[in-house]
Amino acid sequence: MDNNLLQPLKGFRDFLPEDAKKRSFAIDNIKSTFELYGFEPLETPALEYESLLLGKYGDEADKLIYRFEDEGGRRVALRYDQTVPTARILASYKQQLPMPWKRYQIQPVWRAEKPQRGRFREFFQCDADIYGTTSPLADAEIVALANALFQNLGFRDFKIYINDRNILFDVIGFVKIPPELQFSVIASIDKLDRKSEEEVASELIAKGIDTNTVKHLFEHLKTVKPTQKLQEVLDLSQNLGVNKERLFFEPRLARGLDYYTSTIFEVKIDDYPAGSVLGGGRYDNLIDTLCSVDIPAVGFALGFDRTIEALDMFGLFPKEKTYTKVLVSVFNKDLADEAAMVAANLRGNGIETEIFPSYEVKLEKQLKYADKKQIPWLVVVGPEEVNKNKVVLKNLNTGKQTEEKLSDLPEKIS
Amino acid sequence: MDNNLLQPLKGFRDFLPEDAKKRSFAIDNIKSTFELYGFEPLETPALEYESLLLGKYGDEADKLIYRFEDEGGRRVALRYDQTVPTARILASYKQQLPMPWKRYQIQPVWRAEKPQRGRFREFFQCDADIYGTTSPLADAEIVALANALFQNLGFRDFKIYINDRNILFDVIGFVKIPPELQFSVIASIDKLDRKSEEEVASELIAKGIDTNTVKHLFEHLKTVKPTQKLQEVLDLSQNLGVNKERLFFEPRLARGLDYYTSTIFEVKIDDYPAGSVLGGGRYDNLIDTLCSVDIPAVGFALGFDRTIEALDMFGLFPKEKTYTKVLVSVFNKDLADEAAMVAANLRGNGIETEIFPSYEVKLEKQLKYADKKQIPWLVVVGPEEVNKNKVVLKNLNTGKQTEEKLSDLPEKIS
Repeated sequence: MDNNLLQPLKGFRDFLPEDAKKRSFAIDNIKSTFELYGFEPLETPALEYESLLLGKYGDEADKLIYRFEDEGGRRVALRYDQTVPTARILASYKQQLPMPWKRYQIQPVWRAEKPQRGRFREFFQCDADIYGTTSPLADAEIVALANALFQNLGFRDFKIYINDRNILFDVIGFVKIPPELQFSVIASIDKLDRKSEEEVASELIAKGIDTNTVKHLFEHLKTVKPTQKLQEVLDLSQNLGVNKERLFFEPRLARGLDYYTSTIFEVKIDDYPAGSVLGGGRYDNLIDTLCSVDIPAVGFALGFDRTIEALDMFGLFPKEKTYTKVLVSVFNKDLADEAAMVAANLRGNGIETEIFPSYEVKLEKQLKYADKKQIPWLVVVGPEEVNKNKVVLKNLNTGKQTEEKLSDLPEKIS
Repeated sequence: MDNNLLQPLKGFRDFLPEDAKKRSFAIDNIKSTFELYGFEPLETPALEYESLLLGKYGDEADKLIYRFEDEGGRRVALRYDQTVPTARILASYKQQLPMPWKRYQIQPVWRAEKPQRGRFREFFQCDADIYGTTSPLADAEIVALANALFQNLGFRDFKIYINDRNILFDVIGFVKIPPELQFSVIASIDKLDRKSEEEVASELIAKGIDTNTVKHLFEHLKTVKPTQKLQEVLDLSQNLGVNKERLFFEPRLARGLDYYTSTIFEVKIDDYPAGSVLGGGRYDNLIDTLCSVDIPAVGFALGFDRTIEALDMFGLFPKEKTYTKVLVSVFNKDLADEAAMVAANLRGNGIETEIFPSYEVKLEKQLKYADKKQIPWLVVVGPEEVNKNKVVLKNLNTGKQTEEKLSDLPEKIS
């Protein structure tokens, strides 16, 4: 077979066990936090009618939607995000859903983007949202959930930057930026987290803002205070468990202001260089725009691939390369039954156990298998031991081996 | 918006929280059993090159593959099963994988089938296989794993039917069925589990087999014994923990004989009417046929939707409608901070807790919300209680309410 055909498509990935286990660890952890906060799972199909998705993400994005005609002549498209399908769910099932409705969703999405480092054509989105209330308490709950996620994943040093998009509009209105330049100016201000004031100032001046206005703008951004509503969100999220040292009012935060209506926030992990790992905010009009049902909303999307990368970088994944705790080796064909019974016994005690699945392979090769998989314990059920109702237990990290009664094995291994 | 657009595509499904939770429960349970047996996860992309998939499943199946040209002019196709992608993985990564390799895979696949009861265009496949050994011990391990899956999911009454496809060929050879009719005759024999001997006999006679041969065939099928290899698989799987009462040698079992090479088996749940819930066997030549790498294999596919249906039918899902154990209601705006602290405290104790995410909603409506979600406990943080450092705890099943110290709450609820 042509070797090129053995590659996944560009921008798509195979996850061999080591990586698949990391992803599984992260998802399990994230799901328990969602559930600790009373959020419930939702799953929607990979394929939707093309007309549901087209025109919902802007002209540029439309080009990135995988879409085609199916055998039945329907125009269909692969899920591009989880918000549009959820808007469809809200419009279809509004009557039977509890309101406010707190749902999470973790599924792959597909975007025909130019593949580059950290950008893929298939990737997991991981969203949590509260629908059906405009209360600041809901905003605070979403911030507290975001905080709990990273805390529970084991991150120690991360920060939450929070703003109200209206503050930004107030400031640029106050210094009299012409309306037609407001969005462009905000885009420049948003860069202040990674560019110097001088650089952003030059950019603003190039956009036609005079030097004095730029100076006033920067001064105001430094002295502006949270609105009463934002202060309430800050206070409530602290009462909900967010450490005060983590929470930063950041009036320069913009987060692509197209659909957010007030609270916006981002999580950044200290010393993780690839940018924010979570972003969200309040978007009270979007669901109506998408599916003609007037439901206010606040929520976030967690960057799953970045989170995996950061977990790796800070050594937060479990050390074990394999789930397996012990390999029961098979001495020979005559002793396969005994080995099988030992494996069954260990599994019955809840211990992740492999039995080497062949009796025609030399012990030495079985040991190499355990080594390759970094299985910590080996059990040998040899002819002499069987006669004494015992087995040999070997710690593959220390090399130390002892003879054990079968009944003592579970305790020795776990 | 057009209401038709709010429906998922035909053959596709939305899973609202109640169903999504059932699926999540089943997957978690299945994954732990796989891991207890030392199987490791694999994930492959939803999209592959069309040429990898086409011609691999037969002419009829080719028509059911979702395929299209992507924006880059590549012919691509949606995953149709998990065996072909795994064969690609085996061919690409053979050197770095441990051998024997035990992997499981749980992902959606897409098939443009005619939708009908129990048949969908998007559904989960759930496979486990051992690659790289022809040993009967591997066959037994796969049977033992299948048994453990249903046992751990909580099923009490199910049966494993097992056969060696060579037995079937021996029998029909012995009674001298002409070679060109063998596959067709086996297809008829396979129906003996749901049709009477008379019905199958008529079918065979209509296919041109004489009455006497049919009689001999049925007699032989009743007296034939397992081969030595199959007997070994039966013995080893019992030593690996399969209850003898569950295990049935079934010489009439055929399982679409196109690619299986010896052991074949099926799991059926007593009183579950929709057919077998798991099927598998040994397929030593398939991986070579698919991706030109000579690796023997044994494994199974669990029917995920049928398993969910059977779990439902036998009441094996957890009773709770929601993960949430307690709703902390919010008395009014002034007391929102206190309510938030109570919620944070409960969550800190690992208790799944919701805080009603608005302080502008009357207690009565908050109670209705708890009712709708069937949350078992309600906490009210009222003005009088706050002054006494207490809260009201209400059991929503019994209606009984008590005043509790905050520090006593976790114990009372969990």
